[in-house]
Amino acid sequence: MTSKPTHLDDSGAAHMVDVGAKPATERRAVAGGRIAMSADALAAIRSGNAPKGDILSTARIAGIMAAKRTAELIPLCHPIALTSVAVDFAWEEDGISVRAAAATTGPTGVEMEALTAASVALLTLYDMAKALDRAMLIGDIRLLEKSGGRSGDWRAE
Amino acid sequence: MTSKPTHLDDSGAAHMVDVGAKPATERRAVAGGRIAMSADALAAIRSGNAPKGDILSTARIAGIMAAKRTAELIPLCHPIALTSVAVDFAWEEDGISVRAAAATTGPTGVEMEALTAASVALLTLYDMAKALDRAMLIGDIRLLEKSGGRSGDWRAE
Amino acid sequence: MTSKPTHLDDSGAAHMVDVGAKPATERRAVAGGRIAMSADALAAIRSGNAPKGDILSTARIAGIMAAKRTAELIPLCHPIALTSVAVDFAWEEDGISVRAAAATTGPTGVEMEALTAASVALLTLYDMAKALDRAMLIGDIRLLEKSGGRSGDWRAE
Amino acid sequence: MTSKPTHLDDSGAAHMVDVGAKPATERRAVAGGRIAMSADALAAIRSGNAPKGDILSTARIAGIMAAKRTAELIPLCHPIALTSVAVDFAWEEDGISVRAAAATTGPTGVEMEALTAASVALLTLYDMAKALDRAMLIGDIRLLEKSGGRSGDWRAE
Amino acid sequence: MTSKPTHLDDSGAAHMVDVGAKPATERRAVAGGRIAMSADALAAIRSGNAPKGDILSTARIAGIMAAKRTAELIPLCHPIALTSVAVDFAWEEDGISVRAAAATTGPTGVEMEALTAASVALLTLYDMAKALDRAMLIGDIRLLEKSGGRSGDWRAE
Amino acid sequence: MTSKPTHLDDSGAAHMVDVGAKPATERRAVAGGRIAMSADALAAIRSGNAPKGDILSTARIAGIMAAKRTAELIPLCHPIALTSVAVDFAWEEDGISVRAAAATTGPTGVEMEALTAASVALLTLYDMAKALDRAMLIGDIRLLEKSGGRSGDWRAE
Repeated sequence: MTSKPTHLDDSGAAHMVDVGAKPATERRAVAGGRIAMSADALAAIRSGNAPKGDILSTARIAGIMAAKRTAELIPLCHPIALTSVAVDFAWEEDGISVRAAAATTGPTGVEMEALTAASVALLTLYDMAKALDRAMLIGDIRLLEKSGGRSGDWRAE
Repeated sequence: MTSKPTHLDDSGAAHMVDVGAKPATERRAVAGGRIAMSADALAAIRSGNAPKGDILSTARIAGIMAAKRTAELIPLCHPIALTSVAVDFAWEEDGISVRAAAATTGPTGVEMEALTAASVALLTLYDMAKALDRAMLIGDIRLLEKSGGRSGDWRAE
Repeated sequence: MTSKPTHLDDSGAAHMVDVGAKPATERRAVAGGRIAMSADALAAIRSGNAPKGDILSTARIAGIMAAKRTAELIPLCHPIALTSVAVDFAWEEDGISVRAAAATTGPTGVEMEALTAASVALLTLYDMAKALDRAMLIGDIRLLEKSGGRSGDWRAE
Repeated sequence: MTSKPTHLDDSGAAHMVDVGAKPATERRAVAGGRIAMSADALAAIRSGNAPKGDILSTARIAGIMAAKRTAELIPLCHPIALTSVAVDFAWEEDGISVRAAAATTGPTGVEMEALTAASVALLTLYDMAKALDRAMLIGDIRLLEKSGGRSGDWRAE
Repeated sequence: MTSKPTHLDDSGAAHMVDVGAKPATERRAVAGGRIAMSADALAAIRSGNAPKGDILSTARIAGIMAAKRTAELIPLCHPIALTSVAVDFAWEEDGISVRAAAATTGPTGVEMEALTAASVALLTLYDMAKALDRAMLIGDIRLLEKSGGRSGDWRAE
Repeated sequence: MTSKPTHLDDSGAAHMVDVGAKPATERRAVAGGRIAMSADALAAIRSGNAPKGDILSTARIAGIMAAKRTAELIPLCHPIALTSVAVDFAWEEDGISVRAAAATTGPTGVEMEALTAASVALLTLYDMAKALDRAMLIGDIRLLEKSGGRSGDWRAE
């Protein structure tokens, strides 16, 4: 762990950190998050996702596509040639949880790609349910695990 | 409140809801969220934001730019001519909170634009602090208030 | 019908035609297309689309999202505030047909948005089936009908 | 040839296939397509392309730029560092044919990039000729040849 | 002329200025710029633009497409429904000049769209000539005239 | 120095030059530019950038993000995995100068990325100051130095 923000140079100016000297290794990251909603909204969403319903598919595709655009959204992220992205959902008692995994072979990690996929998938669920419940809450967005790179493997407690 | 997801047609297929018959009115939305981090990470971020430091500016610009790209990220969102976007931060004891406001004059609301701005601003803070703390938690992303449109004003309790 | 390409000025240079003086009216367009594939590929795709399978959802979302980006792809298209987009599929004996509908209230038509949605939906089906059949054929992409605007309604014979 | 869609996992969910273990090799693909139009529209387009006219240049640039955005349009496509793209046209008796070639050095093929370039070039021709003929037909979009990768070379019959 | 930057709020934070209360009027802007290059490079470019050559067409299309993406590039620009964009070039003794015009009907001006079109057209010329001359100079990028909006018409001296 | 535009094939058609056979080497480029403005505008901008003011941060982030989108803006540029981008400003007597540096490890150079970052940073400054001075002039945009690649190092005189 470093003790100052790496994305600032000595004068405090933001820059895209130079990763040119870092070796290309296989890197993976998994992020999670969840959206909580009313029982009624959740029931409607679940029935909307019944066979041929597109709710989870839509959120999944949104998450996967957002992962590919992470470097366009997060100013100091490096463009990354993702080799794999997957987004999965689980029905919970009071909402839906998401788990997004990303991988690349490159000089920098894919935490932001996994987190962006999870966030946009949740925002997409929010969008589709917002006529049912305006008080939904998106949270628990965090890194679950990462592997590869100099800092090695890490897993959330 | 409707009782089924409006973004699905009768067969369950996702579609972009027809808003062609809705009148253009002034619409506003405010969304909030927060990122929690370790005391050390927070201290480093705060010092990185000292005069001339770019931490909060970078996250603010990321949020504003993301608001403009909401319809590219969220599959069923309508393209919206935003008339205003603002993103503000507050230092909290264990993290940073964000508040994003968006407005338009049009046939559909800007909740998703405000929520997207808040989410991407928080992801950008995460990105800049992630070398300091990998266990940061993004949450409390929700609509705080909205005005305009047929459903009228709404404010989170 | 005019007798020279409207997208060229008198010197032959491409430009985005000035629509500033045209009134904003409701405009709709429907485009169609199809992809032909081998019986084996089609059977695999159909089974992949069985309950919970994402094949058609993925292509639908791709088409809807592409409609929103038409003006980024087609150089002389005007940016358009789409009020509705829908993409539907039909299983045919030797492939899949698509029908994409778009609408706006504005000074210019949405034919290109409907055609772009249909094209990208078909390309997405191609992508997902290409490991099964490399000789698939995309065709019959055409305008089926349009309404609104000075030139009035039109329907393919 | 596999016998199920590779873009779905075992549960039928769409994902971006993991290509992290595939070696980077030189890969090329060529795709073709055509647009058919009335004799009058074709004549106007040909004269619009007379010296200094921008018709084919515009469609060519649109195709090249679209190839670079394939992964943004096609949900499960991997981002690819294209090393070359070329788009060429041929005048035919009743329309215009296009041929698009793409190349990369990487773990995955560029068929979709070539097909996307061809499709968007044709859509651009449609856009520029649509005031002349609304009944134009885009078709024959298909892979003509590919080389590189584990599956080896392939050429349309 | 105001006396402080309108894009900062009272605390100095950047925001997208609220234009919701401004009436939609017809607005036009014209921007210019030029690229200076060696006589050899200019001669090669001119011959490359000989009949069927794509140099100026490519730069023109790049400028037109960039105008449409201004709000994605310039953080505090409002998304604008452009009604017209045109980019023209003139051969000069030691280079090429560009003139870009944009128009909209809306609450905010199109100066940035015209300037962005001019800048990206010039960068595209640079790109195509850079193997011929690395010391090319892009300059004289400025607003030539604007009309519409509360501040009325303006023309560069 | 070659003697014809490399971005045209033998028939004069634009294409993305094939760099597949070029080795991946470390490449760097630095570009500069400046914006001249009235003393009053410059004073307002400087005060707007006082501690906590976002003027330069906003322009810096815009430049960095634009560098990542160079291949989307400049039609014949190759997509590049940038390993580093930095944008710095200097206050001058009658304006502000910018210096943008970009790097990659790849088969092609990053001059266009550095030039695009500089241009968009300057356009962003223009945007934020345009209510103060409409006659601002952007110029001196040029390559300052490059290294890497077959053509070796180069530095502006």
